[in-house]
Parts: sequence; structure tokens; C-alpha cells
Amino acid sequence: MITPDDLRRAAALLQGRIIRTPLVYSPGISRMAGAHVYLKLENLQKTGAFKVRGATYKILSNAGRVGPGGVVAASAGNHAQGVALAAREAGIPATIVMPERVSLAKQAATREYGAEIVLSGENLSESLEAAVRLAESRGAAFVHPFDDPEIILGQATIGQEILEDLPETDLVIVPVGGGGLIAGIASAVRVLRPQTRVVGVQAAACPSAALSCREGRRIPVDPERTIADGIAVSEVGGITFPIMRDLVEEIVLVDEDQIIEAMVLLLERKKVLAEGAGAAPLAALLGGSIAVPEGGNVVLVVSGGNIDPLVLDRVLRQGFLWNGRIMRFSVCLEDEPGSLVGLLALITRLRANVLDIHHARHERGMPITASRVDVELETRGHEHIAEITAALTAAGYQVQVRQ
Amino acid sequence: MITPDDLRRAAALLQGRIIRTPLVYSPGISRMAGAHVYLKLENLQKTGAFKVRGATYKILSNAGRVGPGGVVAASAGNHAQGVALAAREAGIPATIVMPERVSLAKQAATREYGAEIVLSGENLSESLEAAVRLAESRGAAFVHPFDDPEIILGQATIGQEILEDLPETDLVIVPVGGGGLIAGIASAVRVLRPQTRVVGVQAAACPSAALSCREGRRIPVDPERTIADGIAVSEVGGITFPIMRDLVEEIVLVDEDQIIEAMVLLLERKKVLAEGAGAAPLAALLGGSIAVPEGGNVVLVVSGGNIDPLVLDRVLRQGFLWNGRIMRFSVCLEDEPGSLVGLLALITRLRANVLDIHHARHERGMPITASRVDVELETRGHEHIAEITAALTAAGYQVQVRQ
Repeated sequence: MITPDDLRRAAALLQGRIIRTPLVYSPGISRMAGAHVYLKLENLQKTGAFKVRGATYKILSNAGRVGPGGVVAASAGNHAQGVALAAREAGIPATIVMPERVSLAKQAATREYGAEIVLSGENLSESLEAAVRLAESRGAAFVHPFDDPEIILGQATIGQEILEDLPETDLVIVPVGGGGLIAGIASAVRVLRPQTRVVGVQAAACPSAALSCREGRRIPVDPERTIADGIAVSEVGGITFPIMRDLVEEIVLVDEDQIIEAMVLLLERKKVLAEGAGAAPLAALLGGSIAVPEGGNVVLVVSGGNIDPLVLDRVLRQGFLWNGRIMRFSVCLEDEPGSLVGLLALITRLRANVLDIHHARHERGMPITASRVDVELETRGHEHIAEITAALTAAGYQVQVRQ
Repeated sequence: MITPDDLRRAAALLQGRIIRTPLVYSPGISRMAGAHVYLKLENLQKTGAFKVRGATYKILSNAGRVGPGGVVAASAGNHAQGVALAAREAGIPATIVMPERVSLAKQAATREYGAEIVLSGENLSESLEAAVRLAESRGAAFVHPFDDPEIILGQATIGQEILEDLPETDLVIVPVGGGGLIAGIASAVRVLRPQTRVVGVQAAACPSAALSCREGRRIPVDPERTIADGIAVSEVGGITFPIMRDLVEEIVLVDEDQIIEAMVLLLERKKVLAEGAGAAPLAALLGGSIAVPEGGNVVLVVSGGNIDPLVLDRVLRQGFLWNGRIMRFSVCLEDEPGSLVGLLALITRLRANVLDIHHARHERGMPITASRVDVELETRGHEHIAEITAALTAAGYQVQVRQ
């Protein structure tokens, strides 16, 4: 059990080595939630995620005992970069085992921090096993991504910083994968201000911790694909689970659309880039299943911001459809001179901007004299879309709106 | 001239009314620049930009003298929301004159803060004139976007906060439009730590302040279109100009590609969403024309994050091309069964992901038996693109890479 002394020691060791991330108020989200909502921005942390805290504490506390084999870890994501950076700053060699199909971008990000990359395993579980074997064969120290008291203590510094910056915190909402982050934060809260509530969030696609807490024992699940890949862990840890069970009020689930909506909201309203896991607490807050103290102080832990730019692009485009910033539709045109110009002139008068247009001639099921035209427009909201649909219909076009 | 007393008064008035934005270290940008680089994140400010500081100070300092007509301002962007919010919090009615063609999204954002919107003028200069007339006719107080000592003093609190958080700041780089922001920051620096250098940045598309400082007198320019629309001001102010001339070391120019590259970098490396103006200081830092003290402390003022999501989408896509995350090419295929399958099978073996494909038959200039296929692939970097190009060429395809 983490003590006040542990917390002081961890904070002292990490001081100047990690970024003391800001706790930033969001008036817009506060209005939506009916409470004072603050964001703990671990996406601004070194490596773009909180994992570097636990890794740095673990490696520095054991630096004297680590042999020339250095440290070994397995990860396809934020833990890889956290361990790589922490080891480099401690002057210790690091080897990261990654699943064979991990993207070149993630390999490059980890290599940039000076780590050696070993590709092994079809998935993260196989990489973990390979990493343990590799550590044994090299006499290297294995750094677990979450199930380790020193890793948990490193993450606990987040809870400590939150309560330093906002002593009257009523509720902290934390994303949960293997449980290292929430176990750390809940432990710090228990020491410093036990009346502060701690609630966890998982993606419904991978509810391992939620299920385990409900059943009172660790239950493995088969993770489905989720945008919150950072918390898609098939089983909570043997060390993290009892801490969670004892100190966390509840673990709620959010679905993919809620997570994506929260990512769009954080970016558009608060200019904060969060990865799926990092946006999950906001998704849960807005989902309404957590009892929020009216006018109370709520902290959302934005755990990281490492999202593949192409995934971000898809998230943005989904947001455009929801917000009415893009309209996609098809119409049939008579195959005669001027018919396309007529359509485009009407669209221009409606002050919409053509993003994409495709003219499909000779399609099955259409009259031989007709073409289908698929159009993507930049629009100014749902009212604008309704206006365009009405004007096209009034002009005699049969509009098929597509999503 | 701003005095220590002025600064204390402004800070006291704004305390609790605006967000004291964080100053966050960026290890990645620091490595690139050879200095310790910190970001002053005014994109996390209320309304997503610094403008609310000056507006709040102006309105609160004059609240007793404002009549029932309230305040009037003209803006197509951040000043509109800043004035609207500041007025609402002071319980004063606000009217914002916007150019007639301003987007519905910007109108909605301003109306959300409770302001009345009046559409008048083809451009911002005409809206400004209309706003001055409207203020006179209503007996309302006009709030200028930059050329006002109280607006400048409000923005000066940014300089004060920077020096509180990082007393040993060697260099502050600030985006410049009309000059309110840099005049405020430079004035605070002069009072608190005159040896700290202040450098301004403008888009080359609208170099009004740079030109004016070089010539020693205010020179209007005809702004070209720029992604940094927040600093596309055709003439610096009569009040801001002498302050700039006396206190700012130099004003450097950055081009559009440099700004876009800086936006992509801030988002990908530091998870910070900056609008064009907000990314201009990073563009200037990396552009190399500013003398950076090696190992010194450099602060980039990220002035705001209000970027239209569709513009952001285009910025991201530009970034993908630069980073080799997207490859666009065309090949000619014989018009016979299986030719497209063969191409796609090869692409699959190369582990690229098809984002878009277009099969153009019967094009001019092609053999009657051939089709052109346009392909957009998701790739893992420039090496991956080179690998794909080589493999396609080795398989007999004539690859035309497109940008």
C-alpha cells in the first residue's frame, strides 16, 4: 500500500525528469456537464503519454541493480516510448519487443529514443512472453507495462499533482487498461484526500477491468478492435486488480461512437489532441452514467495524445458528418449537355463548396439516357444541409443523401 | 508606457476571469532548435485564443462608464468571441459586426457567448467602419481589436505570466497582426526583465508590421490569402507601432509552407492544435533566421487554436504527403480480366492500404486497349514509398507518382 513517504519519494525522483503537466479548466465542457471540469493533460507529457512516469520511476529506483543487459519491455505503444526514453535518460540500454506487424511509425518513434527494437509475436501477449524470455537470457531487467508496484507508484504522481493543483477535487475519471494508471491515482487519492471519488472508464470493446470488478475476480476477455487501443488490455493485473477493487468506485463502459465524439469535442472545443484512451473519460462524463456532483470539481485524465494521423483524419471526417460540415448525396442527371452545369450552378448559389464529384455513366438500373452523380459538399451545418436538400428537390432533382 | 503598477492591476483584474495558461516544455522541439523551447499555450485560453484577455481588461476597467448600448466590436475571428465572452461575464450587452461572408460556424461561436451579430461589410475594414458608426449611433463603447492601451495592457499579462513561470527567459517569439499582442508582451518584458529579447513573426503574405518596422513608419499592405488569417492585418496600429518599433528586436517573415509544417509538427509531436498564427513562431524558430541562444530558454507564444476543422483536414493531408504517409500514383493497365486484381494483389503484398482508387477508361492519349488507374495509398514513410515504386516498376508497371 502506497504511503505518504512513497509519494514524496516518487515526486522527488521524477522532479525535472518528467513534465509536470498542467491541469486546465474547460468552460465549454463544464457547461455541458453542469460541473467544473478540468483536464489533466498527460498528452503534453514527454513521449505524449503518462507511461514515461512509471517507467522513469521504475528504472531510476533500480538503476544501481540493472546489469549491462539493461532493461527489456514489450509494447506496441506508449509504454515502448516511455521505457526507451527513461532508459536513455538513465544511461541504460533498452530493448523493446514489439509485435511483428507494428507500424513503421511506432518503431521509428521508439528507435528515436535510442532503444533497440526486436519484432516478435503476432500480438502483444506473445511479445510480452518473448520479452520475458529475452530478459532472462540476457540477464536484463524486465519492465512490466502496469503490473508492478513501482510502475504504479510512478503513475501515482499524477494523482498527487491533481490534488496539489485542485485540492477540492470531487471526482477523478481515469481510463483503464491493465490498471496501472488508475491504481496509482486511486492510491495517491487515498493517502491525500480519501473523500475524492475515483471512477474508471473502459471501452465496451474490451471490458476486462469492468467485468473483473463486477465479478470480484480477474476475468480475461477477447478484445475487439477499438479506437482506444491504448486501453485494449485483455486482463487486468494481479497487483493492480485488488487496488482497483478496493479504491475505485466503479468502472463504466463507453462505446466507439462516444469515444470518437469525445475526441472531436476535445479537439474542436479545447484544442486538445487526445488518443482514444485519453478521450474516454470525457466520453464517460457526457455519457451520463457517472453521478456528477452538481457544481463540483471534476478532473478528466487525458492520458495521452499518440494517435496515428491517418486515424485522426478519419475521426475528423466522422465529426464533419455529425456536425453537418460535410454533405454526401447522389442525384440522377439526364445525359444531355448542360445538365451537370445546371446542378453545379445551383450548388454554387446555395454557397456550398464542392469537395468531390463523381459522374457514373451507364450504371445498372438507370435509364440509358441518365447518369448518376455522386457529390461531396462542404457545408455550414445541418440547417445548411436541409436548405440544400430542399432547394435541389424543389428544382426537380431526386436527392439521395448518403452517410 | 506600461508601469509595474499597471501590470499588477491588470493581473489582479483578470485573475479568475481568464485561464492562466500553462507554459509547457517541448523536448522534441528543443532538440530540433538546440535550445530549451517552451510553449505558452494560449490555445487553451477561454474562447481558444488570447484575445479574451485584452477584451476582458478593457470592458471591466470601463464597466462603470458603459451605457445601456453596451459594447460594439468588429471581427471575423478571435476578437469577436473574446469581446462577446468578456461582455457577457461583465453583464454588458455586446454587438459584433462581422463581414457579410463570414462562415455560419464563426457566427454561431460568437452568438453562443451571447452577443448580437450584425453582418455588414465586404471585408474586415468595412466591418470596422460599420462598427464605429453603429457604436456612435447607439451610444455604445467601441472595442478596438488591438490599437488601444487597455487592450495592450490586457495582452501584457501573457508576458508577465511567462516571466513568472520561467524567469530566465532569453527570447520570446510572438505572432504579429495589428500588434496588440506583441506590444503588450514587449511592454511587460521591458518592465520585468529588459534583457529578454522579443521577436515578432508575420506571414510573408501580409508583412505590414515587418515592412513598417523596416521603414520606420506605418505602411499599409494588401494582404494576400494566408493560412495565418488571424494575423492578416493590412496596417499596424498608431498606438502599437511605436511600442513595437522601440521594444521589439525584429520582425521576421515565414511563408505558407513553413506555417503549415509548424502546425503539423505541433500536432504530431506535441499534441497541440494551433491555428496558423499560433504556429508562426515555431515556423520562424525552425526557419533559422532568428539568432537563437544555444542552450538558452525560448518561449513560443501559441496565440490561439481556432482553426476551421476542414482547413485542419487539409493541413493534415499536406502533412501526410510530406511525411510519406500517403502515396498517390497512376499506372496504365491493359483492359483485360485480372489486370486490376494483379495490381491490387501486389499492393497488398507490399503492405500498403488502398485509400482511394479510380479506374478511368477511354481516356484521350491512351491506347484503346488500356485504362488508367489512379491510386491513393496509405504508406509508412518515404522508404515505404520508394519500395512500392521499385516493386511496381520491377513488375512492369509504368508508375507516375503524383503529389
